Amino acid sequence: MKNRAETQTVNRMNPVKPLIGITLGDAAGIGAEITLKALADARVRDSLEAVLFGDRVVLEQAIQQTGLRGEIVEIDSVENLHPEPGIHYLCDQHQLTAAAEMGRVSAACGAAAFAAIKTAVQWALEKKIDALCTAPINKASLQAAGVPFIDHTEILGHDTGTKSPLTLFVVDQLRIAFLTKHIPLRRVAESLSVPLVVEGLAATDRGLQQLGLSRRRIALAALNPHAGDSGLFGDEEETVLAPAVAAAAARGLEVYGPVPADAVFHDGLEGRYDAILSLYHDQGHIAAKTRDFHRTVSFTLGMPFLRTTPDHGTAFAIAGENRANPLSMIEALLAAARYG
Amino acid sequence: MKNRAETQTVNRMNPVKPLIGITLGDAAGIGAEITLKALADARVRDSLEAVLFGDRVVLEQAIQQTGLRGEIVEIDSVENLHPEPGIHYLCDQHQLTAAAEMGRVSAACGAAAFAAIKTAVQWALEKKIDALCTAPINKASLQAAGVPFIDHTEILGHDTGTKSPLTLFVVDQLRIAFLTKHIPLRRVAESLSVPLVVEGLAATDRGLQQLGLSRRRIALAALNPHAGDSGLFGDEEETVLAPAVAAAAARGLEVYGPVPADAVFHDGLEGRYDAILSLYHDQGHIAAKTRDFHRTVSFTLGMPFLRTTPDHGTAFAIAGENRANPLSMIEALLAAARYG
Repeated sequence: MKNRAETQTVNRMNPVKPLIGITLGDAAGIGAEITLKALADARVRDSLEAVLFGDRVVLEQAIQQTGLRGEIVEIDSVENLHPEPGIHYLCDQHQLTAAAEMGRVSAACGAAAFAAIKTAVQWALEKKIDALCTAPINKASLQAAGVPFIDHTEILGHDTGTKSPLTLFVVDQLRIAFLTKHIPLRRVAESLSVPLVVEGLAATDRGLQQLGLSRRRIALAALNPHAGDSGLFGDEEETVLAPAVAAAAARGLEVYGPVPADAVFHDGLEGRYDAILSLYHDQGHIAAKTRDFHRTVSFTLGMPFLRTTPDHGTAFAIAGENRANPLSMIEALLAAARYG
Repeated sequence: MKNRAETQTVNRMNPVKPLIGITLGDAAGIGAEITLKALADARVRDSLEAVLFGDRVVLEQAIQQTGLRGEIVEIDSVENLHPEPGIHYLCDQHQLTAAAEMGRVSAACGAAAFAAIKTAVQWALEKKIDALCTAPINKASLQAAGVPFIDHTEILGHDTGTKSPLTLFVVDQLRIAFLTKHIPLRRVAESLSVPLVVEGLAATDRGLQQLGLSRRRIALAALNPHAGDSGLFGDEEETVLAPAVAAAAARGLEVYGPVPADAVFHDGLEGRYDAILSLYHDQGHIAAKTRDFHRTVSFTLGMPFLRTTPDHGTAFAIAGENRANPLSMIEALLAAARYG
């Protein structure tokens, strides 16, 4: 944030807070609502300054619906940003001319959400913002708009030239990375190999480095019940996972395991490991979301900047009803401010 | 507990508390220690009376090690039991003549633990006790003693003539049953079938009936990420799980799902379902133990009496050091008292 700090004209008593870019997400969802609610949270106000990426009509509608007042000031350059209470700085995308019909899939909303992400990524790459926090988008709306990416991670990977962005879930002290994600459970065991697991452990280590952790104790979750109980219920612990941990250790990583999966996440919560590498989607997702559904934050690492996001969707069913819970968005913003 | 209540000679102000049988578990483990600590807990004292099954030397050693004093009164019949503070009623098994070497596998300890379970089961079948709560045993010690069963559930199933005892994990409002348990993860998908899942849902329903629940909303956890996302990442939801839910509903059960596994346990915690049927060991174990490792209680249902147990082992590594956490034992005892 040197750029901004150098051109800053406002005299501030406090150290410069990080500037977090927030994309408002799909206009028919809860994105703008949870953004406004989160920005009204005292911890968020104390921790960061924000610049919003989206459309004025969407933000106006959300201000109306939430009753959370605020003056919208449009900016197209960070130099014009002089944070003041009650002001929402908006980098208006000028995509939507009217408020969206809430809870509906629409090409216009998909295109608008896409445009906002692309602009925000540009700002992030130019180091105008310290980190990015994205409100949820709708995959169907993206598709309807002809966007050739299925989700944030694909867009971000493409626009930043990052081959394999790393997803890290964080809840309390527990950090969880994923080795495989959107594959059938029946394909998980056969998809494991020593090189894949070693690379997963190494990627997790790099992710923790990006977060600034000097000590990076990584535990590998086991695949089978009781880690296979010495081969009694599955042998992948012996044939793949233990050799991968040994190979990663030989590379100088501080790695442990395989640890039985019903203990390893608890160990992470207790601070015995700095991250857990989960072997399959639900293994880590069940852990994080059963522990604290509303406070699980997802990080995207391995890019030139940090991105966080609440781990939930657009909630079309309750969009526009001022009933959305901003807790995960609050945690995502605080995480962006802390690590960004 | 009619038998006991009828012969009760002590005049009590309060309604009769349930009488819970407690087996002390493996003498070289933390069983007697956590039992004494749990019995010293005010909530436990207020909720139940206890009769212990094990060996006097073991109990004496634990009294010594914990500093939790108490007079040991041996009984061989429930008629002699007149609960008083500071008295531990013990149905002495006369198996061990000397205190065990802590933390060591031994045939003598295995045989003693086995004897105590068999006696306690007999008392439970004769309705002398309202429910059974078992402290942890050691599988290797059981084996060393030539016991032809691998764990509590097998012993209990055999001695009560119960073909498939149902395990139910309980933590807070969340109740979790298991469809499969000790099989390799790679075998889970292929082991699913409509009849198996329907029977699992029905068994869960019967288990909830045994606990006295009049409403029994059971959710089936999905197998694949996002419940397969309409077949995109696996089709078992469409080919097996949804048809099984439909078949169970046709039988009159109140069943839901398949629900994505990273949401369903959270839903259970929120009280939206009365139980979740987990498809594989770690699915439910990760949920319960990441949620609250020390307060997860395991129930064994489908037998003529209720059995509960803390969800941990003998902890040989810290046995005899007065460091064991009694929280899970406390919860197991409270659960036995509440539902027994």
